[in-house]
Amino acid sequence: MAHIELPEGYPGISGAFTYRPETAKPMRELAHVLLHEPNSLTAGERELIATYVSSRNDCHFCQSSHGAAAACHLGNAAVVEQVKTDFQVAPVSDKLVTAADVEAARKQGATDTEIHDTVLIAAAFSMFNRYVDGLGTWQPRDPEMYARMGRHLADEGYKEPSIRQPVHAG
Amino acid sequence: MAHIELPEGYPGISGAFTYRPETAKPMRELAHVLLHEPNSLTAGERELIATYVSSRNDCHFCQSSHGAAAACHLGNAAVVEQVKTDFQVAPVSDKLVTAADVEAARKQGATDTEIHDTVLIAAAFSMFNRYVDGLGTWQPRDPEMYARMGRHLADEGYKEPSIRQPVHAG
Repeated sequence: MAHIELPEGYPGISGAFTYRPETAKPMRELAHVLLHEPNSLTAGERELIATYVSSRNDCHFCQSSHGAAAACHLGNAAVVEQVKTDFQVAPVSDKLVTAADVEAARKQGATDTEIHDTVLIAAAFSMFNRYVDGLGTWQPRDPEMYARMGRHLADEGYKEPSIRQPVHAG
Repeated sequence: MAHIELPEGYPGISGAFTYRPETAKPMRELAHVLLHEPNSLTAGERELIATYVSSRNDCHFCQSSHGAAAACHLGNAAVVEQVKTDFQVAPVSDKLVTAADVEAARKQGATDTEIHDTVLIAAAFSMFNRYVDGLGTWQPRDPEMYARMGRHLADEGYKEPSIRQPVHAG
């Protein structure tokens, strides 16, 4: 149960965003720049970083929705599961997954901006995860809902709400 | 030493903000809404939450700059030190310091929006702290620099950079 009275039918962060649009606006903008705008790291790679951090922080909503977005971008759901369960053997480039080890990433050819953005994506998801779980938001277990969200996020990005009206999910 | 080539003379987050203005803009806007715009929690109380989270995350730059801003708002530097060192006996209202315990805060009269904003301030500083330390930014130890920053933040808020040109601090 949510710790405060959030609007019904809005899962995860969408409930908190609907509740407080003043803070939602810059948070959406930050996610849009980091995850969706053109960048030398692909959108799929960036969604994988978001998914990985969210899985380490054990945020069901974030890892499910961004994992679904990553799967859409990459056309590959298996790699998303692999990143969540065992990132060191996942078939993604070392410049992506060794964000904790900047020098190793640089030796693999990571640029300053790629390192900057990777650090900030990881930091930002430490915020998003704590926000979603810290408020005790509603986080349905229905994989179909996350698949629809992931499709929307992959296509449209983050500037506008991905959930505009209450959903009914199991 | 910074992990990437940040502009010289810009301490802490100001180096990263100068390096990547596209992400700085929404991050500044979020801080401005959370910490500076009118709210039922005073700006001093909100800066104390930011200071406390930053001290628990051991981010020198963030706890020093927001601690200085809190001291300006409250006209009291001793309470800032006390919140950092022993928050449970610090003379601030229970509705502020028991953010981890939402029900206890509510019993003290905290509103939904106060609980929402407290959770989000704590979450956002988990982002800011990781960003500042994750990039290995330059964090001078000169208390005077932080006192000047705190004055600026308390007076002007977060919409515009508080450091506009390189500083030389010990």
